[in-house]
Amino acid sequence: MSELNAVNLAEKLGLFSDHWAPKVIGALNEYELKLVKVQGQFVWHAHPDTDELFLVLSGQLEIAMRDRTVTVCEGELFVVPKGVEHQPRAHQECHILLMEPRGVVNTGDTGGSMTAPNDVWI
Amino acid sequence: MSELNAVNLAEKLGLFSDHWAPKVIGALNEYELKLVKVQGQFVWHAHPDTDELFLVLSGQLEIAMRDRTVTVCEGELFVVPKGVEHQPRAHQECHILLMEPRGVVNTGDTGGSMTAPNDVWI
Repeated sequence: MSELNAVNLAEKLGLFSDHWAPKVIGALNEYELKLVKVQGQFVWHAHPDTDELFLVLSGQLEIAMRDRTVTVCEGELFVVPKGVEHQPRAHQECHILLMEPRGVVNTGDTGGSMTAPNDVWI
Repeated sequence: MSELNAVNLAEKLGLFSDHWAPKVIGALNEYELKLVKVQGQFVWHAHPDTDELFLVLSGQLEIAMRDRTVTVCEGELFVVPKGVEHQPRAHQECHILLMEPRGVVNTGDTGGSMTAPNDVWI
Protein backbone atom coordinates (compact mmCIF):
# COMPACT_ATOMS: atom_id res chain seq x y z
CA MET A 1 0.00 0.00 0.00
CA SER A 2 3.04 2.26 -0.17
CA GLU A 3 2.70 5.32 -2.35
CA LEU A 4 5.23 5.98 -5.06
CA ASN A 5 5.70 9.57 -3.96
CA ALA A 6 6.39 11.26 -0.68
CA VAL A 7 3.33 11.98 1.46
CA ASN A 8 2.98 15.61 2.51
CA LEU A 9 1.44 15.82 5.97
CA ALA A 10 0.11 19.38 5.60
CA GLU A 11 -1.50 18.53 2.28
CA LYS A 12 -3.20 15.47 3.75
CA LEU A 13 -4.35 17.46 6.79
CA GLY A 14 -6.06 19.86 4.40
CA LEU A 15 -8.30 17.08 3.11
CA PHE A 16 -10.48 16.63 6.19
CA SER A 17 -11.81 18.52 9.16
CA ASP A 18 -13.66 16.04 11.34
CA HIS A 19 -12.40 15.22 14.81
CA TRP A 20 -11.40 11.89 16.37
CA ALA A 21 -11.64 10.10 13.00
CA PRO A 22 -8.18 8.86 11.96
CA LYS A 23 -7.27 8.80 8.25
CA VAL A 24 -4.65 6.38 6.95
CA ILE A 25 -1.82 7.97 4.95
CA GLY A 26 0.69 5.15 4.78
CA ALA A 27 1.61 1.65 5.80
CA LEU A 28 4.78 0.14 7.20
CA ASN A 29 4.60 -3.64 7.14
CA GLU A 30 1.54 -4.50 9.23
CA TYR A 31 1.40 -1.01 10.77
CA GLU A 32 -0.55 2.03 9.62
CA LEU A 33 0.30 5.71 9.76
CA LYS A 34 -2.76 7.82 10.45
CA LEU A 35 -3.54 11.51 10.73
CA VAL A 36 -6.17 12.66 13.17
CA LYS A 37 -7.53 16.02 14.27
CA VAL A 38 -8.80 16.17 17.83
CA GLN A 39 -10.49 18.68 20.09
CA GLY A 40 -12.24 18.14 23.40
CA GLN A 41 -11.95 14.87 25.22
CA PHE A 42 -12.04 11.30 24.02
CA VAL A 43 -13.28 8.24 25.90
CA TRP A 44 -11.17 6.38 28.41
CA HIS A 45 -9.91 3.22 26.75
CA ALA A 46 -6.99 0.84 26.44
CA HIS A 47 -5.49 -1.27 23.67
CA PRO A 48 -4.79 -4.62 25.33
CA ASP A 49 -2.54 -5.90 22.53
CA THR A 50 -0.49 -2.94 21.38
CA ASP A 51 1.42 0.20 22.22
CA GLU A 52 0.17 3.36 20.48
CA LEU A 53 2.30 6.21 19.14
CA PHE A 54 1.17 9.84 19.20
CA LEU A 55 3.32 12.43 17.40
CA VAL A 56 1.90 15.94 17.77
CA LEU A 57 2.19 17.98 14.57
CA SER A 58 0.43 21.11 15.87
CA GLY A 59 -1.34 22.11 19.04
CA GLN A 60 -1.06 20.40 22.38
CA LEU A 61 -2.39 17.03 23.47
CA GLU A 62 -2.96 15.82 26.99
CA ILE A 63 -2.94 12.09 27.52
CA ALA A 64 -4.52 11.30 30.83
CA MET A 65 -3.65 7.96 32.38
CA ARG A 66 -4.90 6.65 35.70
CA ASP A 67 -1.69 7.58 37.53
CA ARG A 68 -0.58 10.69 35.65
CA THR A 69 -1.22 13.01 32.73
CA VAL A 70 1.37 13.61 30.02
CA THR A 71 1.32 16.80 27.96
CA VAL A 72 2.55 16.32 24.40
CA CYS A 73 3.38 19.54 22.57
CA GLU A 74 4.08 20.20 18.89
CA GLY A 75 7.22 18.34 17.86
CA GLU A 76 6.89 15.80 20.65
CA LEU A 77 5.86 12.17 20.72
CA PHE A 78 4.57 9.79 23.33
CA VAL A 79 3.96 6.07 23.30
CA VAL A 80 1.06 4.80 25.40
CA PRO A 81 2.11 1.35 26.57
CA LYS A 82 0.00 -1.66 25.72
CA GLY A 83 -2.91 -2.15 28.10
CA VAL A 84 -2.63 1.25 29.79
CA GLU A 85 -5.94 3.07 30.12
CA HIS A 86 -5.76 6.54 28.66
CA GLN A 87 -7.93 9.47 27.68
CA PRO A 88 -6.64 11.92 25.04
CA ARG A 89 -7.77 15.52 25.52
CA ALA A 90 -7.11 18.78 23.69
CA HIS A 91 -8.43 22.20 24.68
CA GLN A 92 -7.72 23.59 21.19
CA GLU A 93 -7.63 21.69 17.92
CA CYS A 94 -4.58 19.48 17.77
CA HIS A 95 -3.18 17.54 14.80
CA ILE A 96 -1.56 14.19 15.41
CA LEU A 97 0.28 11.50 13.51
CA LEU A 98 -0.60 8.08 14.91
CA MET A 99 1.15 4.82 14.33
CA GLU A 100 -0.28 1.48 15.35
CA PRO A 101 -0.93 -1.99 13.91
CA ARG A 102 -3.55 -2.22 11.18
CA GLY A 103 -6.98 -2.93 12.61
CA VAL A 104 -6.60 -1.19 15.96
CA VAL A 105 -9.92 0.39 16.95
CA ASN A 106 -9.63 4.00 18.13
CA THR A 107 -11.80 3.43 21.18
CA GLY A 108 -9.95 0.23 22.09
CA ASP A 109 -11.89 -2.01 24.43
CA THR A 110 -14.41 0.70 25.30
CA GLY A 111 -16.32 1.14 22.05
CA GLY A 112 -19.25 3.56 21.84
CA SER A 113 -20.26 6.43 19.63
CA MET A 114 -16.74 7.79 19.15
CA THR A 115 -15.62 4.58 17.47
CA ALA A 116 -14.35 5.49 14.00
CA PRO A 117 -14.26 3.23 10.94
CA ASN A 118 -10.87 1.71 10.19
CA ASP A 119 -8.81 1.81 7.03
CA VAL A 120 -10.10 5.15 5.76
CA TRP A 121 -7.30 6.17 3.40
CA ILE A 122 -6.89 9.70 2.18
CA MET B 1 11.19 0.90 27.01
CA SER B 2 8.61 3.67 26.80
CA GLU B 3 9.48 6.88 28.55
CA LEU B 4 7.13 8.33 31.13
CA ASN B 5 7.27 11.76 29.54
CA ALA B 6 6.83 13.08 26.04
CA VAL B 7 9.95 12.96 23.86
CA ASN B 8 10.90 16.30 22.34
CA LEU B 9 12.40 15.77 18.90
CA ALA B 10 14.33 19.07 18.79
CA GLU B 11 15.81 18.42 22.23
CA LYS B 12 16.94 14.95 21.21
CA LEU B 13 18.38 16.27 17.94
CA GLY B 14 20.51 18.65 20.01
CA LEU B 15 22.26 15.73 21.69
CA PHE B 16 24.28 14.49 18.73
CA SER B 17 25.89 15.70 15.53
CA ASP B 18 27.27 12.64 13.74
CA HIS B 19 25.84 11.59 10.41
CA TRP B 20 24.29 8.31 9.31
CA ALA B 21 24.23 6.98 12.88
CA PRO B 22 20.63 6.50 14.05
CA LYS B 23 19.77 7.10 17.71
CA VAL B 24 16.78 5.39 19.30
CA ILE B 25 14.29 7.69 21.03
CA GLY B 26 11.35 5.39 21.54
CA ALA B 27 9.83 1.99 21.00
CA LEU B 28 6.42 0.89 19.78
CA ASN B 29 5.96 -2.83 20.36
CA GLU B 30 8.81 -4.48 18.45
CA TYR B 31 9.54 -1.33 16.44
CA GLU B 32 11.98 1.47 17.19
CA LEU B 33 11.77 5.19 16.53
CA LYS B 34 15.13 6.63 15.60
CA LEU B 35 16.51 10.06 14.83
CA VAL B 36 19.29 10.39 12.29
CA LYS B 37 21.19 13.30 10.76
CA VAL B 38 22.40 12.74 7.24
CA GLN B 39 24.48 14.58 4.68
CA GLY B 40 26.09 13.30 1.50
CA GLN B 41 25.22 9.92 0.14
CA PHE B 42 24.72 6.58 1.81
CA VAL B 43 25.41 3.13 0.37
CA TRP B 44 22.96 1.33 -1.87
CA HIS B 45 21.21 -1.31 0.18
CA ALA B 46 17.94 -3.10 0.78
CA HIS B 47 16.13 -4.53 3.78
CA PRO B 48 14.84 -7.90 2.60
CA ASP B 49 12.44 -8.37 5.51
CA THR B 50 10.93 -4.98 6.23
CA ASP B 51 9.58 -1.70 4.93
CA GLU B 52 11.37 1.40 6.25
CA LEU B 53 9.76 4.73 7.15
CA PHE B 54 11.50 8.07 6.61
CA LEU B 55 9.83 11.22 8.01
CA VAL B 56 11.83 14.35 7.18
CA LEU B 57 11.93 16.82 10.07
CA SER B 58 14.18 19.39 8.39
CA GLY B 59 16.07 19.63 5.12
CA GLN B 60 15.46 17.56 2.04
CA LEU B 61 16.17 13.90 1.44
CA GLU B 62 16.50 12.13 -1.86
CA ILE B 63 15.84 8.42 -1.88
CA ALA B 64 17.23 6.93 -5.05
CA MET B 65 15.80 3.60 -6.12
CA ARG B 66 16.77 1.66 -9.23
CA ASP B 67 13.75 2.87 -11.20
CA ARG B 68 13.21 6.35 -9.79
CA THR B 69 14.26 8.90 -7.19
CA VAL B 70 11.84 10.29 -4.63
CA THR B 71 12.44 13.68 -3.02
CA VAL B 72 11.19 13.92 0.56
CA CYS B 73 10.94 17.46 1.93
CA GLU B 74 10.39 18.72 5.47
CA GLY B 75 7.00 17.56 6.71
CA GLU B 76 6.85 14.67 4.30
CA LEU B 77 7.24 10.95 4.73
CA PHE B 78 8.09 8.04 2.49
CA VAL B 79 8.05 4.30 3.04
CA VAL B 80 10.68 2.29 1.17
CA PRO B 81 9.04 -1.07 0.47
CA LYS B 82 10.62 -4.25 1.73
CA GLY B 83 13.39 -5.53 -0.50
CA VAL B 84 13.68 -2.41 -2.67
CA GLU B 85 17.24 -1.25 -3.21
CA HIS B 86 17.67 2.37 -2.21
CA GLN B 87 20.31 4.99 -1.61
CA PRO B 88 19.49 7.95 0.66
CA ARG B 89 21.20 11.22 -0.30
CA ALA B 90 21.14 14.77 1.04
CA HIS B 91 23.01 17.75 -0.38
CA GLN B 92 22.59 19.69 2.87
CA GLU B 93 22.21 18.29 6.36
CA CYS B 94 18.83 16.68 6.79
CA HIS B 95 17.15 15.44 9.97
CA ILE B 96 14.97 12.37 9.81
CA LEU B 97 12.71 10.31 12.03
CA LEU B 98 12.99 6.63 11.12
CA MET B 99 10.72 3.83 12.11
CA GLU B 100 11.56 0.18 11.59
CA PRO B 101 11.62 -3.09 13.51
CA ARG B 102 14.21 -3.40 16.27
CA GLY B 103 17.45 -4.89 14.98
CA VAL B 104 17.33 -3.58 11.41
CA VAL B 105 20.85 -2.75 10.26
CA ASN B 106 21.18 0.67 8.63
CA THR B 107 23.18 -0.67 5.69
CA GLY B 108 20.80 -3.59 5.21
CA ASP B 109 22.30 -6.43 3.22
CA THR B 110 25.25 -4.33 2.00
CA GLY B 111 27.25 -3.80 5.18
CA GLY B 112 30.54 -1.92 5.10
CA SER B 113 32.06 1.02 6.92
CA MET B 114 28.81 3.01 7.16
CA THR B 115 27.19 0.30 9.26
CA ALA B 116 26.14 1.89 12.56
CA PRO B 117 25.68 0.11 15.88
CA ASN B 118 22.10 -0.69 16.79
CA ASP B 119 20.11 0.19 19.89
CA VAL B 120 21.97 3.41 20.70
CA TRP B 121 19.41 5.20 22.87
CA ILE B 122 19.62 8.90 23.59
